[in-house]
Amino acid sequence: MSDAVKILEVKASILEDNDADADVLRDALKKKGTFYVNVMSSPGSGKTSTLLKVIDQLKDKAEIGVMEADIDSDVDARTMQEHDIPSVQLHTGGMCHLDADMSRQGLRLLEEVNACDFVFLENVGNLVCPAEFDTGAHKNLVILSVPEGDDKPLKYPLMFEKADLVVINKMDALPAFDFDLERVTAYIHRRHEGIPVFAVSARTGQGIDALSQYLFEEYRAFKEGK
Amino acid sequence: MSDAVKILEVKASILEDNDADADVLRDALKKKGTFYVNVMSSPGSGKTSTLLKVIDQLKDKAEIGVMEADIDSDVDARTMQEHDIPSVQLHTGGMCHLDADMSRQGLRLLEEVNACDFVFLENVGNLVCPAEFDTGAHKNLVILSVPEGDDKPLKYPLMFEKADLVVINKMDALPAFDFDLERVTAYIHRRHEGIPVFAVSARTGQGIDALSQYLFEEYRAFKEGK
Repeated sequence: MSDAVKILEVKASILEDNDADADVLRDALKKKGTFYVNVMSSPGSGKTSTLLKVIDQLKDKAEIGVMEADIDSDVDARTMQEHDIPSVQLHTGGMCHLDADMSRQGLRLLEEVNACDFVFLENVGNLVCPAEFDTGAHKNLVILSVPEGDDKPLKYPLMFEKADLVVINKMDALPAFDFDLERVTAYIHRRHEGIPVFAVSARTGQGIDALSQYLFEEYRAFKEGK
Repeated sequence: MSDAVKILEVKASILEDNDADADVLRDALKKKGTFYVNVMSSPGSGKTSTLLKVIDQLKDKAEIGVMEADIDSDVDARTMQEHDIPSVQLHTGGMCHLDADMSRQGLRLLEEVNACDFVFLENVGNLVCPAEFDTGAHKNLVILSVPEGDDKPLKYPLMFEKADLVVINKMDALPAFDFDLERVTAYIHRRHEGIPVFAVSARTGQGIDALSQYLFEEYRAFKEGK
């Protein structure tokens, strides 16, 4: 891996039907055996720090890579690189989301860095727009952090409808905030019934084992074609 | 004031030139003597709780009203109403921002509730899209909370460029997070030189006096036509 972060200025998709394109990408990745997970959250919910902890547990079991999407800056990709995790930075040029074709552009660049079979996309920090665009990912992982409040599934319904699993981060900060884990779980399940909810702290490591194990099982099932 | 929250499903603007329309609205409000402040932040940064504290200090000095914009739900407008603050709820129907014409629709409804001369808009929780649409407000107030991290002005440049003042909220949580007030202030000033930055805690009340005083001075200068 080289030291400089590879940065891609992604181009807005010219395709009208992103949903169809996302299915094409998803199928192509399936055939190739690349498991693709789209991570979404508000700004500052801890996407990068949670991924660092999870990848630390998974890195010997899969070829992991990360695409860091951002309006600007390359701080997250640099962080990944400092931890020897193959990563690229995708600049959206002001756009608040990524779509399937933008994913495809990023995956192509990531392949130049490393041949990965488990790719995380750290989407733009935003609880609204990213939920509206299918990235072609096999799983959507949504992170909500304790300081944001447990009412967020009420206010950002689509994000939680699209989620395949939800991670509640910053559990170590629970004593300082009025946040109820049971209540937020009920609100999440009102949007998407029965999806798993993991309570973690990327800071202390609490709950990271269970989350990593779950993601590994999903990856293994994917590889076995289930 | 009636007990039921007035909810408006705002319509997407049909005007092509939102910037021009925003200037028209801003001027009309100026002539009418209505000071309009657009409050933007990530989800869960504490827009509602900060406004509650500030309004508590300003309510005897101005006729204050609040427009709560949300994709869905009416929790924030209900909270305002429980505190006897004239408010309306604007539903954006999935849209991630408000523009000038949507502001105008909301202001019209708020007028049915109360004749206000100091109106806060609580924009959709989002650090990306709301910055792209001029609401016609006289001031843009951006709230960033300590748990989100001090790197946010690097990642969401436009939001901080558009800000006329920035409030750093949840200062009481500072010991639990790696957040540097001097650093964030420097990052903010890289985006918009010299704008005021207020460090507050809506929970403990820290810093609310200075922020309220500043907003009142802005309101007074506005009313005096400065």
